[in-house]
Parts: sequence; C-alpha cells; structure tokens
Amino acid sequence: MGIGQEVVERCRKLATHTEEPGFITRTFLSEPMHCVHADLRAWMEQAGMSVHVDAAGNMRGHYGGARADAPKLIVGSHLDTVPHAGAFDGILGVVLGVALVKALDGRRLRFGIEVVGFSEEEGVRFGFPFIGSRALVGSLDDALLARRDAHGVSVADAIRAFALNPAAIGDARVNGLPLGYLEFHIEQGPVLESLNIPLGVVTSIAGQSRLEVKFEGKANHAGTTPMHLRRDALAGAAEWIGAVEREAAAVPSLVATVGKIEAEPGAGNVIAGSVRTSLDVRHTKDEVRAAAVKHLLDAAQQIAARRDLVASSELRLDQAAVAMDARLIEMLGCAARDGGYPEHRMHSGAGHDAMVMAERMPAAMLFLRSPGGISHHPDEAVLESDVVAALATGLHFVHQLERANG
Amino acid sequence: MGIGQEVVERCRKLATHTEEPGFITRTFLSEPMHCVHADLRAWMEQAGMSVHVDAAGNMRGHYGGARADAPKLIVGSHLDTVPHAGAFDGILGVVLGVALVKALDGRRLRFGIEVVGFSEEEGVRFGFPFIGSRALVGSLDDALLARRDAHGVSVADAIRAFALNPAAIGDARVNGLPLGYLEFHIEQGPVLESLNIPLGVVTSIAGQSRLEVKFEGKANHAGTTPMHLRRDALAGAAEWIGAVEREAAAVPSLVATVGKIEAEPGAGNVIAGSVRTSLDVRHTKDEVRAAAVKHLLDAAQQIAARRDLVASSELRLDQAAVAMDARLIEMLGCAARDGGYPEHRMHSGAGHDAMVMAERMPAAMLFLRSPGGISHHPDEAVLESDVVAALATGLHFVHQLERANG
Repeated sequence: MGIGQEVVERCRKLATHTEEPGFITRTFLSEPMHCVHADLRAWMEQAGMSVHVDAAGNMRGHYGGARADAPKLIVGSHLDTVPHAGAFDGILGVVLGVALVKALDGRRLRFGIEVVGFSEEEGVRFGFPFIGSRALVGSLDDALLARRDAHGVSVADAIRAFALNPAAIGDARVNGLPLGYLEFHIEQGPVLESLNIPLGVVTSIAGQSRLEVKFEGKANHAGTTPMHLRRDALAGAAEWIGAVEREAAAVPSLVATVGKIEAEPGAGNVIAGSVRTSLDVRHTKDEVRAAAVKHLLDAAQQIAARRDLVASSELRLDQAAVAMDARLIEMLGCAARDGGYPEHRMHSGAGHDAMVMAERMPAAMLFLRSPGGISHHPDEAVLESDVVAALATGLHFVHQLERANG
Repeated sequence: MGIGQEVVERCRKLATHTEEPGFITRTFLSEPMHCVHADLRAWMEQAGMSVHVDAAGNMRGHYGGARADAPKLIVGSHLDTVPHAGAFDGILGVVLGVALVKALDGRRLRFGIEVVGFSEEEGVRFGFPFIGSRALVGSLDDALLARRDAHGVSVADAIRAFALNPAAIGDARVNGLPLGYLEFHIEQGPVLESLNIPLGVVTSIAGQSRLEVKFEGKANHAGTTPMHLRRDALAGAAEWIGAVEREAAAVPSLVATVGKIEAEPGAGNVIAGSVRTSLDVRHTKDEVRAAAVKHLLDAAQQIAARRDLVASSELRLDQAAVAMDARLIEMLGCAARDGGYPEHRMHSGAGHDAMVMAERMPAAMLFLRSPGGISHHPDEAVLESDVVAALATGLHFVHQLERANG
C-alpha cells in the first residue's frame, strides 16, 4: 500500500470511532476517544515512538533525537471533530505526523520529534476551543477547567471521567523551547483547488470578529400595513447584508459573512418586528478587520436611521491575527520546491492549534488542497497524491531543519 | 355606562375565556368557547333575540322583523382568535352587532337582524380558515369536515366533542336571500390612525398570493472561502428581499412582504447553503397582483443566475380579490356622514368572513381605527369614541336600509 493510501485509510479508520452512529462526531474526551488513542498508540509505537496521554487528554508520541538532550520539533493537530464532521479535519495532521516519523525508518536526527494529537480544538463541547493546545502552552487555567458542558460536566470532570488527573495539567506544558511547531491540515476552502495546486504554506492565521447584529422595527400585518407605514426589520437587515457583501468584495482578502438570521415573529403574513443576524469578519491585518467592522456597524446605523429601525450589536469574539514564523515559512516553501511542488503562500481564514502554539514557539502550517473546498461535512476529502506531496514536503522540511541545526 | 365603554368591556370579558392562561387564545370550538357562548347568549337574549348554536358552532341570535316573513340583515364576525391575540379582532364585530340590536330597544323593522358569531375564521386549528362562514354559505363540505388538527382530531370530531351534530351542518346554511351582510371589524392596520379618521368603509378585500421562495447555493466555511468563490444563498435572498420591497413601493396600493426567513445551516461561521423565505403579495386588482408575483419570481431567477444559485418557488395560496356590494358601500358611506363622521373608503388587506359571505349575498364592512395599527397582539385596542361612531353609523345604515325596503 502506498503511503498516501495508508494515511487516508488510517484517517478513515479513526473516523469510525464516533459518538453518533452513521456520523462522525467526537467531542472532547468522549468515549470513542479511547479507541482513537488505542489506534494511534499502536501506530506511534510501530513508528518507534514512546507514547503517553497527558492530563489534558492529548496523545503524545515522542521520537527521540540522536542525543538525549536534543531539542524537539512538535508536529500535531487535533483529534476532536465538529458534529457530523468529515474524516480529515484535524486527524490528517496527526496521522501525517506519525507517517513522517515512520518514514524516517528509525534514523535519528539532531532533534527529537513529538507528534501530538490534541484532545480538543473545535470548541464544541464547552463552547470554547483549543483545550488541548492551551495545555501545552500553559494557558489552560482553573477558570477553563471549571467550564461546564450542556450536561453540567466540567472540563475537570471530563478529564477525571477519562481516567486522567486534572491536577497534573501543569505537566502537559511543553518544557524548554522547541525548534518549532508544524501542523499539516486540510485547507477547508476552495483556493488551492481553484489554483490547481496541492499544497499551501500558511503565512498567517486571520484575525476574527464575530458579532450579533440586531435590527428592531415593528411587527405588523402584512396585508393591512401600507409600504410607507412599515418599519420592516427584515427589509432593513436585507439591505445591510448587501452592504456586508459589498464591503468584503471591495477590500482585498477581507471576508465578511452573515450566515445566521432569525426574524421575529417569523410568519409569512406578518412584517418582521425584529431580526438578529450574525456577522463574521476576518482579515490577516487586524487594523483592516477593525475598520471593516466599524464600516459595517456604521452602515447598520445609517440603514436603521433611514428606516426608523433601531440597530444594535454585541461583540462575541475579537481574535487577533497570528503570524506564522518567517523562518519556518521560508523552510516550508523551500521544502515544497525541493519535492517538486509549487510554493504557494496563503493565509488561513480559519483558526488552528498553530495559533495557540505560536504563543510559545515558532509555528508553521502546511495546507493540503480540499477537494470541492468541502469541510465540516461528511464529504470532506483529501487526495492521496496531495498526502504524498505533504509528506515529501514534511521530510524535506525535517532535513532542512536538520541542516539548520547542524 | 356609555355604550362605547360597555362594548369594550364586553369584548374584554370574552377575552378572559382562553385556552392559555395569561394569553388570549381561542381556536375552533375549544373548551373556552362554551363560556363565550354563555355570555353572548345572555347579552343577545337581553337585547330581545332568540338564540341558537348551529352545527358548525356558530352563535346565531335572531331579532325578528315587523312581519314573520320579513327578510333579514346579517351582522357578524368571528369568535375565534389567533394564539396570543388581542381582545377585539372578530369579537368586536359580534358585540357591536348585539349592541346595534339592543339600541333598537325593541323597535321592529321591516327586516329582521341576525347577529352571527362565527365559530372560526383565523384558520389556526385546522390550517384552514372560515369554517363558520363557510357553513352559512353552504361550502363546508365533507372534505373540510374530515380535516384534522395537530392532534388528529377532525373538524367533525371537534363538532361532536362540543355536543353538536356534524350531520346537521346543512341546516346552518342561510335560507333565501338576505338583504345583506354587514361586518364591523378593527382595521388591523395603521391607515385610519395615520389619517386621524375613526371609520373606514371597505370597498374590497385584496386578493392574496402566498409563496415559498427558495435560494440554493453552497454552504462553505466563512473564513476560508474568498468572496469571489462563494455561492451565498443568504446574500442572494437579501438582494431579492430588497427587490420585493422596491416592487411594492413602486406599484400603488400593492403590498409585498417577506416575513419569514430560514437560512441553512444557520451558523455564524458558515456561508448559508440554502435559504427559504415566504412571499406575501396583496392587491385589490388580481391582474396587478399576478403581474407583481411574476416580476418578483423573475427577479429571483435573475439574481440567482448572476450568483450561481438556484431559485425555486411554490405557490401556497392564490386568493382572488372580493368586491364589497356597491349599493351597501354607498349606504354605509351615507350612514357615516349622517352620523357626522367623514366617509373614508379603503380596501382591506386582510381576509375577513365578509369575503365568504359575499359569495351568497351583498356584503359590506365597516372598519374601526386600530390604535397603533396593532393587531394579533395583546396590545390590540379600540377607542370607545370610535365604537360609538361605528354604532351610530350602523344605526343610520339600518335606517337607510329600512327606507330602501319601505
């Protein structure tokens, strides 16, 4: 079996461990995570790694360097999924990390490699993402451990229920300064496919603003209220959604999305009295993002004023952009070219564990093309040939790092 | 107590008979309808009427004319409500009918007056309106009697459960040709208030088109999908909602409303893959309404084509406009002027029992100003002075009809 096929089959095997039969759903330290750990442990040990699960539920496989005191490269991604997920988001990066070590075939480097399968990145169970990587950088504090899921179970409870000890979370923290963090991940977007390129070197992870925007007018009878006497919250919201789209189209690399809308009372024969919408704005430059958010909130006010509506907003998330490490970006780009693949640099519009890891060490990400741009969906896929490309690039990257630390 | 105050207090008394404590909710032949009937029967009998409940659950009070074979004028409206209703929609017309007979103080006319409290107009329980008035015009057929509510109870079952006999529905039909049907009803809109006029003579009831319009694009990640690679169903729907509003504003007396919208998957960080909206279009001229619906469906197709979306629609209701009787309109207008009130003619944007009754007899409606234009809401109200105006107009109308039949 080719390595591309093996990696894809391993991802599909892990996808069978799910909370919901017929779907792929696996949240923080849920029961099927035991099976994921068992499979990964076997594969890691076959590749010559020593394995343990830390107190945050991260799967950690260590492949020692030539010397006992060698520094290490961390290669990782996450093991959890969104509800009704695909088989590759997160998992692929872990399985590729194992494949990278396996490909070394026992050869020792001037540095060790730690492959990490983070316990949680998606934020599904506790409404808060990055539990796994936060433990590695030491930012998983008591307040986070006390957060509760929909059933009232805290993060600490969930850790105990998985036969781990939350008091030992501190031991999960990465010691010393690793050489860096490398994450393989599917793009989860259509850009590489539209360019017909297998790989993308991530330069930065976009910052995000998430808001709720509300328009309030007056619910009224759809038959008896003449157009000029209406205060139609949905007509106002619709005008604003057009403004959101135009703003994003006008500013290079800006994306702005209204994906959620709720009209009250929501009956076909009643003019909407109030409408709540989401707003999601992302850009790699925080000042561009902030300006766009301001423009869009100003637009909401102007539209509301003209229509005798009241517009209001609540900020739900304001996450700064995170740059990947310039030296590692260079090395990843060279590594892609060394493998005979085009070097394409791009930003990530989605958040990843690399954002958190970048707080403590140089971080880099390599994207693999997403067929159809599909992600967070059972149809999520990856091409075996792109897996081969990513693995070759990873090996060239390791060799460059080896030379750089020679 | 003044007659305006008495009418309002009677409406508020009937509003205490409800299926949901704390709200006014009273659907077809539900338990509290027994209490409504008991109150109305007492008031009707006090006014000199003989009372019975027909097999469709309509409350019918008859005030005989000077001669046993005198023709009759029917005055009515409905006793049921929408969920969480106000105290006047429907009920006011019945209570005003009783007040009109009471104001005759026993004097016999050349015609009898039958006051009808229709059992059902809103269509809440069986998803189908006008059960009561259909029985009077003879269009409540076996198919309608077999319709079932959310609990599987048929119209016929509900009639039996109310201790009535569905086999006797035919007896509910109006015999002979009545002189006409008169319905007092709150406007349920803001027009009279905006003109500072108490009453409106209804010239016609607008026709209605109700449709569901669907836009289908592609759900995608809000962070990783550049604007130019999106097929955003919500952005398309929003553009179309703007077109709906512009079309209605451009055509005199046309109203068009999108009151319901559902975006899938409906998450803030996911581009909407599909959006369903309602469309409600009303006009007193059926050809104007048909042209508007066609324009709006064409606009949906054009917007969808430009955005690589698929637009589709389903017609849910296509109800022709119904004209009120020209002679009764004239008489109602004169009656208003006789009472010292301005004669204002207007159409009704909402459906009413008068639409159904017009199939069998000359029909007329008199609107009373709705404070704040509010209806189908606990804040629904009516001014006592407007009740006095409506009653005076009703009495002048009766006297004109008396002269016309002299």
